[in-house]
Amino acid sequence: MTEQSLETPLTRLLGIRHPILSAPMAWVAGGHLASAVSEAGGLGLIGGGYGDAEWLERELANAADTPVGVGFITWSLKQKPELLDQVLAHQPGAMMLSFGELAGFAQRIREANCCLLAQVQTVEQAKKAVDEGADVIIAQGTEAGGHGANRATLPLVPAVVDAVGSVPVVAAGGIADGRGAAAAMMLGASGVLMGSRFYATEESLAHPIAKAGAADAHGDDTVRGSVFDRLRGYGWPEPYTLRSLRNRMTDQWHGDLSHLEDNLTEERERFQAAIENADFELAPLIVGEAVDLVDRVQSAQEVVEGVVAETTALLQKGAPNVSLHSGGT
Amino acid sequence: MTEQSLETPLTRLLGIRHPILSAPMAWVAGGHLASAVSEAGGLGLIGGGYGDAEWLERELANAADTPVGVGFITWSLKQKPELLDQVLAHQPGAMMLSFGELAGFAQRIREANCCLLAQVQTVEQAKKAVDEGADVIIAQGTEAGGHGANRATLPLVPAVVDAVGSVPVVAAGGIADGRGAAAAMMLGASGVLMGSRFYATEESLAHPIAKAGAADAHGDDTVRGSVFDRLRGYGWPEPYTLRSLRNRMTDQWHGDLSHLEDNLTEERERFQAAIENADFELAPLIVGEAVDLVDRVQSAQEVVEGVVAETTALLQKGAPNVSLHSGGT
Repeated sequence: MTEQSLETPLTRLLGIRHPILSAPMAWVAGGHLASAVSEAGGLGLIGGGYGDAEWLERELANAADTPVGVGFITWSLKQKPELLDQVLAHQPGAMMLSFGELAGFAQRIREANCCLLAQVQTVEQAKKAVDEGADVIIAQGTEAGGHGANRATLPLVPAVVDAVGSVPVVAAGGIADGRGAAAAMMLGASGVLMGSRFYATEESLAHPIAKAGAADAHGDDTVRGSVFDRLRGYGWPEPYTLRSLRNRMTDQWHGDLSHLEDNLTEERERFQAAIENADFELAPLIVGEAVDLVDRVQSAQEVVEGVVAETTALLQKGAPNVSLHSGGT
Repeated sequence: MTEQSLETPLTRLLGIRHPILSAPMAWVAGGHLASAVSEAGGLGLIGGGYGDAEWLERELANAADTPVGVGFITWSLKQKPELLDQVLAHQPGAMMLSFGELAGFAQRIREANCCLLAQVQTVEQAKKAVDEGADVIIAQGTEAGGHGANRATLPLVPAVVDAVGSVPVVAAGGIADGRGAAAAMMLGASGVLMGSRFYATEESLAHPIAKAGAADAHGDDTVRGSVFDRLRGYGWPEPYTLRSLRNRMTDQWHGDLSHLEDNLTEERERFQAAIENADFELAPLIVGEAVDLVDRVQSAQEVVEGVVAETTALLQKGAPNVSLHSGGT
């Protein structure tokens, strides 16, 4: 058994061994995935999603006594704020809020002695989140699967690091292996959050066909847009959009949302049938650009241990193609 | 005088000391900038842009005897292929081709014993460029200033590295300091290409107001789109778009290109006047998301030496927030 660890300000704050978080993917990141990530030394996050109290209770039960976190979509939580108390009663290891203002939630989370992770998509949002009481900033780039916005991870992370002083920054979006994690650490991040890689784990609640699809998929074939949010009827505010694999549905409507609106009733029927049939030519397979680096379905423990080993090796041995020479005259 | 160097497969191939390239920014990267970058140990690239033979001849003369490279917009070069011979007659250190098929050019460049750098925006393009004879792949992410496409640098670079075997890969887009360069090296890159940082150098041909604007600008405030290409009348093919700072012109037309077409004659007059008056509320200030990391106008030599020093320190000392622990039981 290895005792390897990557200690950072984030691991010290959260009391975890590795600075690796699994994204709170709605309907995909349940208690079994989150607890497996936490047991492997990272922090697993249950996806609170659009606020189904019963689902949430079941998944918290599935995590049993393992400390896990829970992530909420902030604008959605505003519509059912009682869910926050429901979750805080379980004394989660951390709460993650994304896509909206922290005001109204930060104080309750703090009073529960829970760590608040705020996911942001711009430098301005990062500064605001710190002012509003975030303990950790998750800087998410546009390459992420699922919901996000427009800035890219590589230039966003160092700018956020410069903007938020001593608050630990976690890089999210575009990271699926030790290369991405080591790169994020070079940018000044204290941790990484991965979605796509954990989507394709044994413990994820994604459909088996979708997991296999993720393992086969190419990063060139994702698209960020609003087709699936219109079909699902989720009221996502601007500027948030969803990145998923391109398929027949996005090919048809991505550039033509107004006509989708005109055909919404029948398209929703077609969409609903596709979901029931696990037909991912029409239903969304929600992964990000880093899916190139996901080539098989593994256990969450294998993912965490593999990424930690790769990251450690890169940080110990240095960049693979670089020989440093120094001297002076 | 320091003799520090970062040796990689790219530096060996090009015969340079540092794996740092300056982007061939149209109208901005002239001979003085390119030669200053090369003299500092990197490779400077003159921006061949839209094919003004006279401009090109003057800028090649400005580089004098310093070995520099030249970059062309491939679809534009197809319209004036004689420019390639004009440049090859100067025995450039390298030719960079971006935005289009290499076929028809690769062989002539190879016959001139010149190194061919092919800039790509997807993994598929990278594979194709290698098949067509590229010696180096420049993997450019959407966060880059100027023209580009949709994939982001952080997940694109390792996927391209995996796809092209032993061909050196240069990361472009989102890199403006040693943190970005060290991150790129962790991803498996053998070098970096920077635009925005060199835009704001003393030697760049950008307007002084634009350079100062770049130093003050925020990465949250860039936008990728086609407003300025429509105004300039350049026939950029899909999927290429331009990233620049948002300003009154992009705020007005970015989401409303069809109405811009309806008003094109008068808007072009307004645009032309803005260019002449260096009014960057209406004229394009072309930088990328990494502009957060550009806070002053420096000499190109200071930029190269500063980035090399930062990169070297990070690769030697390891990531700033990480303590590695390893052991076994």
